[in-house]
Amino acid sequence: MLKLIPDRIEIRSGKQYIVLLNNRTAHMLDLHIGDRVRVKNGKYELTAMLQISEEGFLDDHIGLYMEAWKELRAKRGQRLTVSVCDKPISTKYIKQKLEGHVLEPNEIDEIVKDITADDLSDIEMTYFVSGCYIHGLNNTETAALTKSIVKHGSKLDFGNKLVVDKHCIGGVPGNRTTLIVVPIVTAAGLLMPKTSSRAITSPAGTADTMEVLANVTVDAPKLQKIAGKIGGFMTWGGGVDLAAADDHMIRVRHPLSLDPEGMLLASIMAKKHSVGAKRCLIDIPIGPQVKITSLKHAKHLKDRFIKIGKMLGMKVKVVFSDGSQPIGDGIGPLLEAQDVMKVLRNEPDAPQDLKEKALYMAGLLLEMGGKAIMGFGYRKAKKILKSGMALQQMERIIEAQGKKRMPPNARLVYQVKTGKDGKITHIDNKILSKLARVAGAPLDPAGGLLLKKKLDDKVKKGETLFEIHSNNEDRMRLAKEISQKERAYIIK
Amino acid sequence: MLKLIPDRIEIRSGKQYIVLLNNRTAHMLDLHIGDRVRVKNGKYELTAMLQISEEGFLDDHIGLYMEAWKELRAKRGQRLTVSVCDKPISTKYIKQKLEGHVLEPNEIDEIVKDITADDLSDIEMTYFVSGCYIHGLNNTETAALTKSIVKHGSKLDFGNKLVVDKHCIGGVPGNRTTLIVVPIVTAAGLLMPKTSSRAITSPAGTADTMEVLANVTVDAPKLQKIAGKIGGFMTWGGGVDLAAADDHMIRVRHPLSLDPEGMLLASIMAKKHSVGAKRCLIDIPIGPQVKITSLKHAKHLKDRFIKIGKMLGMKVKVVFSDGSQPIGDGIGPLLEAQDVMKVLRNEPDAPQDLKEKALYMAGLLLEMGGKAIMGFGYRKAKKILKSGMALQQMERIIEAQGKKRMPPNARLVYQVKTGKDGKITHIDNKILSKLARVAGAPLDPAGGLLLKKKLDDKVKKGETLFEIHSNNEDRMRLAKEISQKERAYIIK
Repeated sequence: MLKLIPDRIEIRSGKQYIVLLNNRTAHMLDLHIGDRVRVKNGKYELTAMLQISEEGFLDDHIGLYMEAWKELRAKRGQRLTVSVCDKPISTKYIKQKLEGHVLEPNEIDEIVKDITADDLSDIEMTYFVSGCYIHGLNNTETAALTKSIVKHGSKLDFGNKLVVDKHCIGGVPGNRTTLIVVPIVTAAGLLMPKTSSRAITSPAGTADTMEVLANVTVDAPKLQKIAGKIGGFMTWGGGVDLAAADDHMIRVRHPLSLDPEGMLLASIMAKKHSVGAKRCLIDIPIGPQVKITSLKHAKHLKDRFIKIGKMLGMKVKVVFSDGSQPIGDGIGPLLEAQDVMKVLRNEPDAPQDLKEKALYMAGLLLEMGGKAIMGFGYRKAKKILKSGMALQQMERIIEAQGKKRMPPNARLVYQVKTGKDGKITHIDNKILSKLARVAGAPLDPAGGLLLKKKLDDKVKKGETLFEIHSNNEDRMRLAKEISQKERAYIIK
Repeated sequence: MLKLIPDRIEIRSGKQYIVLLNNRTAHMLDLHIGDRVRVKNGKYELTAMLQISEEGFLDDHIGLYMEAWKELRAKRGQRLTVSVCDKPISTKYIKQKLEGHVLEPNEIDEIVKDITADDLSDIEMTYFVSGCYIHGLNNTETAALTKSIVKHGSKLDFGNKLVVDKHCIGGVPGNRTTLIVVPIVTAAGLLMPKTSSRAITSPAGTADTMEVLANVTVDAPKLQKIAGKIGGFMTWGGGVDLAAADDHMIRVRHPLSLDPEGMLLASIMAKKHSVGAKRCLIDIPIGPQVKITSLKHAKHLKDRFIKIGKMLGMKVKVVFSDGSQPIGDGIGPLLEAQDVMKVLRNEPDAPQDLKEKALYMAGLLLEMGGKAIMGFGYRKAKKILKSGMALQQMERIIEAQGKKRMPPNARLVYQVKTGKDGKITHIDNKILSKLARVAGAPLDPAGGLLLKKKLDDKVKKGETLFEIHSNNEDRMRLAKEISQKERAYIIK
């Protein structure tokens, strides 16, 4: 126990209380980065995480970030009592996971609770991710992780109404079925409160594409209201805190791009579980250039999804789809949104592959949700789309979230043409994604690609394969260069 | 590439350049914590590690810690160019280690180089430690790690002179042989530049005990001079940057108290290698309450030490010693220093166990260093001690490092007595260490314990087993309480 003089540090530390000592004081007190200390000022006290500054602080001083300063009612010149706390018990479980033990649900819950409360340092969380990455999480652990993420995050509650949801294990450019599926199934009376992610390494996430049409950052109370009234929405998951612990774990996974399978599954399932979904459709595209490249891997995931779903009281259906080429014609937020609206408006030049996939998925959800007899879902979905009810429903959703004015198409368009006759035998998803990002997607929503040809199409020399859209000369120049060096289409 | 307005943050970040974005700007730029960004201001540019602030920053602003602000000659209101950099290649090797690969020496060197240059974040270093902890490091990897730690840290160079060193795998309270061994072997003409650690969880490290007698924070040029003149010194390793990368790794190992064996070995060997030691004596105490509890484990370590030493061009001898009770009578910096001086002064009440162990170790080093014929080292060491040459040498070393006035003995002394007659069958190292720390060691150098009885001693009811020394009433009260509740001595 020691008496130290507080210094105010003009930085917010967020939820976590952080205090700072200089090297020498920390050494004298036998304290290390990430240690927890109890700081007291009379009746005010708190537990804070310790940071150590190499220099710039006086001995016997303790730096308090703004939140801690305020909470302790600290004043310059006074002395605060500082003592060392034990580490949270969750660090013991993390070490056990690192050593290969299988954790009990209550142990996982302790870890997730502390992660959510910002009580674990990045280093400690990283050890947890390491353990899960190397030793894996079995189904019981994964279900426990999912439940705890939901338990300690915010939730949306729709009472007894049947909530359906879907998820696609990404990697296929342009795959915006969600924006068609939600209007169809909610038009049929199902509840589908859909939160999606933004692009991380892709040209557009579902939330980016929806953002071209409507506001996607909506808080939980408003979402609850919208879903109650219209039956669904399509917003950005980051706008509500549905899986706070998951976001923390993703942050420490990022530096090495680690995707521990159990964490990936828990991350997906937690988002469904937190909106109370009881039926969930999972789409696993398989192809040489998407996340899942083999049928064997897809089957393994399918098995895990179904078993974990059962543990969560969620009926899960998994479908495998073709991930060998983009879905739809547009790649990039604006061009994808235009594809979606064409399908919803039943326009003749709407991309058929996007439409068919969306109808198939919507049909399955209608069956799973009891709105269509088995085998008749597709037909019902088609009817709802054709009748204009889906479009009407989409317009309601857009209105409710906050309609946005669609940006104009990009100023610059460059046609990438074929140099020979033949048949398209391969389309490279990765090169196309890269081109779309270089062209400006997703930051510039109008940047991206418009595909004019798909697999198995016959082409003649000089025909356009795809267009590059961009609003920036530098970006366009770079995209052109790449399109000449790297072949996105193989023609034989 | 983006133009952002710089804000100056009034904090030093140390060697590493750090910049800060708010959540929204980071998201817009697809940037995450720990990403590297290239920041340019005209001809001034640097690569910085990104931190993200939850709030408190304006969009389109970039916060620069003092070092980055200065280096970039930033001014308020101007705009800096910010672009994303690739991660260092070392992160790829770290991921490979995490996945169980054996790393090549050049890959390990890349990691250590980046750790030393502060180019890896705590999260990335933590993944490296995780990989080494779970999958281990083989001898080739460990030798490579040792070499790289030395290569990228500071070194002491003594030309062609034969340098000897010793190390003890800690855990035995009071075990201060180094303070006797160094004077003896340097008096015999060997070069023994000894850096030691301070206590982390124990009542005193060698550096803490030496600090009672002399200054132990000495920089490299001065150390070089002292060793050149006197043949040796005993200082704190933290005063010279001999193994900077090791210190970083220890920092991220601390939160879970992880001791990956390969890292432990590299950490020890790097300190020897960085002073150019060609002969090294390793002492492994074995006992139920020290670091190494079984002969099997000790033999395994011995084998690794010798093999790794060979790869470093270092001849290593490993001895196993008795770790079942403290060495010497004092526990705590001052009381241990008093033990040491009694031995060096050939006082009749000098603790014999400390003296004998030191003579044994010194003898082996004299043989290894060619100053005594095999089998005659102990005798030579004894002669040097008895003649007063060791004491004289100790006084020279103390003078050279900067003599300190020894603090007075503690004000408060409490006698812990036995309640029955019998023979001492067990002494609990851990309880004794705890008592010594509670009494004030190592922060208060006079705090600690003075043992009056050792294993196999016969005692009568009412006799003193040991004394608790403290300068603080609260600490003394707590130590008393513990001494009554927890039995440090078992008498049968």
